[in-house]
Amino acid sequence: PGSGDRARWTGPFFANDESAYFMSLNRGKKSITLNLQSPKGKEIFLSLVKQADVVVENFVPGTAKKLGIDYSVLKEVNPRLIYAAISGFGQTGPYAHRPALDVIVQGMGGIMSITGEPGRPPVRVGASVGDIAAGMFTAIGIVAAVHERSRSGLGQMLDVSMLDSQVAILENAFARYWATGEIPQPLGSRHSAATPFQAFQTRDGYIVVALMGGDPDPWPVFCSALDLVELIGDERFLDGWKRTNNYDVLEPILSEAMKKRTSQEWLQTFEELGIPCGPVNAIDRVASDPQVLHRGMVVDTPHPRLGTWKTVNSPLRLSRTPGQARGIAPQMGEHTEEILARFLGVTPQQVEALRRGGVV
Amino acid sequence: PGSGDRARWTGPFFANDESAYFMSLNRGKKSITLNLQSPKGKEIFLSLVKQADVVVENFVPGTAKKLGIDYSVLKEVNPRLIYAAISGFGQTGPYAHRPALDVIVQGMGGIMSITGEPGRPPVRVGASVGDIAAGMFTAIGIVAAVHERSRSGLGQMLDVSMLDSQVAILENAFARYWATGEIPQPLGSRHSAATPFQAFQTRDGYIVVALMGGDPDPWPVFCSALDLVELIGDERFLDGWKRTNNYDVLEPILSEAMKKRTSQEWLQTFEELGIPCGPVNAIDRVASDPQVLHRGMVVDTPHPRLGTWKTVNSPLRLSRTPGQARGIAPQMGEHTEEILARFLGVTPQQVEALRRGGVV
Repeated sequence: PGSGDRARWTGPFFANDESAYFMSLNRGKKSITLNLQSPKGKEIFLSLVKQADVVVENFVPGTAKKLGIDYSVLKEVNPRLIYAAISGFGQTGPYAHRPALDVIVQGMGGIMSITGEPGRPPVRVGASVGDIAAGMFTAIGIVAAVHERSRSGLGQMLDVSMLDSQVAILENAFARYWATGEIPQPLGSRHSAATPFQAFQTRDGYIVVALMGGDPDPWPVFCSALDLVELIGDERFLDGWKRTNNYDVLEPILSEAMKKRTSQEWLQTFEELGIPCGPVNAIDRVASDPQVLHRGMVVDTPHPRLGTWKTVNSPLRLSRTPGQARGIAPQMGEHTEEILARFLGVTPQQVEALRRGGVV
Repeated sequence: PGSGDRARWTGPFFANDESAYFMSLNRGKKSITLNLQSPKGKEIFLSLVKQADVVVENFVPGTAKKLGIDYSVLKEVNPRLIYAAISGFGQTGPYAHRPALDVIVQGMGGIMSITGEPGRPPVRVGASVGDIAAGMFTAIGIVAAVHERSRSGLGQMLDVSMLDSQVAILENAFARYWATGEIPQPLGSRHSAATPFQAFQTRDGYIVVALMGGDPDPWPVFCSALDLVELIGDERFLDGWKRTNNYDVLEPILSEAMKKRTSQEWLQTFEELGIPCGPVNAIDRVASDPQVLHRGMVVDTPHPRLGTWKTVNSPLRLSRTPGQARGIAPQMGEHTEEILARFLGVTPQQVEALRRGGVV
């Protein structure tokens, strides 16, 4: 109570000082304040846990135990509970006690070492994939545990490490390293195994083009489109792996040719030929892209203080039980009364007393 | 039959010509060959579908229909079936028919526009996050649909678009854009809202350090460690958001100070102070990191042709029903006889006849 989630104080902010960052992470949630260090707060928490399906926490390991609300306590209160703990490095091991934030696991997990331009400083992936991968694995683990519970009747603990999750999404880089002994390096915009598979500069911008085998390999068609028919029969470029191994020879030829026409001209040509291609879109272009809009990925939600609030939708399109981004982010403690009344039958007067006592 | 998955022909290869790329993507699977363009092959497929929980396909939209095995057909055969279709742009909309590969959706979905160094060419995230995000959302959708089925008894279709999935994992970039109207840009290794939250060059390499609010804000402690106590009270740097807005002033001061000591010295200092930090690890260092090994993220699997094969484990640590990476990738059609015998009672002689007829 009083300060709440630090993300509430992280910019950018809307004109009314609400954090766009906090809002984007917490849409559709309810918020209750609760002082877990007070005996009464802890008692309320345990009463809520008794009725909960899932508890998710992202304390540094050891904190939940110190508060007396770790899984060993909660499972006694509710044996059906699924308890998901997300931490930087997991609940066990030599780094377990260390704090982490997105860029730490991006650095330690290896993705920074293979992202960026050769010979230049490490680059962070512009989206928080260190956070997001852990969040997505947590979602998979929770839904799996909920399903398993429908047979066994029992909950369990899910221990997700941001570092483990980061390592898991790199799998191919490790596969390459273990197969060849070579340490994967940053490759600019290109791919480790397929060529061409990268961004090219055109006369007026950048586009991405990708060939990856296929049956038949679109390489001859691609060469013809670039007026480079002499490359078609060249032994060095016969398949994607050979083209990758002869990248240093091939790249300057392709790059030179690609600069001769505009992005729009290339995209039209490649699209007609069925060659995977697309523009390199900035965020404003993505947000107004006809396909993105057609798929309902941009959701307008009425907001009491901002009028309409835009948010990115869930990408899950289930035919019979469709999901949908719903609701806005809660004010701190906005639902304290509602939650305590609904689950524990607490009266408004009692909530007021709890508030005066610093419990909520 | 005959060529199989194109990933089998994508390098790098082990000494015995097996694709490390294919193996990393297909561990623990079984492989059956089946010519879906032959009437007999299609009949076998439909018989298998009758007993299946889930079908996953990643054809360009329209292909399954052309083959006569789209969801409208399969659900008549098995109403409990969950049918997951992953495609570049989804089953609907103006781009639905277009093919896509990882870098295409990285380009079109915006992540390339916010990854890399300011003023330099676009950079592809070194891991295939265009593929992986779609795969992870598909996993979430499938498990959710399986769980829902345990109540309703009914399957459904899951339509996952790589572009939608890419947009979904960027959510914060869109939140910033919609809140401020400013188009997010590539920021090298730093964060859009928190400072310091980036890689710094030290006397002998790079490390990552991250401060993000916290209570209390570790900024004064951090300044002391850098011998920059004069910054502590500076109004321009009082919180992470202010430090971000005054990055151009602050960054040269911090970068200069960080160059004075080695990575190891800084990491030890920051760790003692509880400040999130870590090395920027190349893949070989990640693969031998004590925490990564302690967590069991590297799995040695016996392999008949390679001796021992290393792979990255699943990051899910469920206390009661733990998962584990198991098995190797199958040879093409390795399990054709086994699958056809087990599910359809087909005899080895019948399989031989199917093989001669080009059906398997």
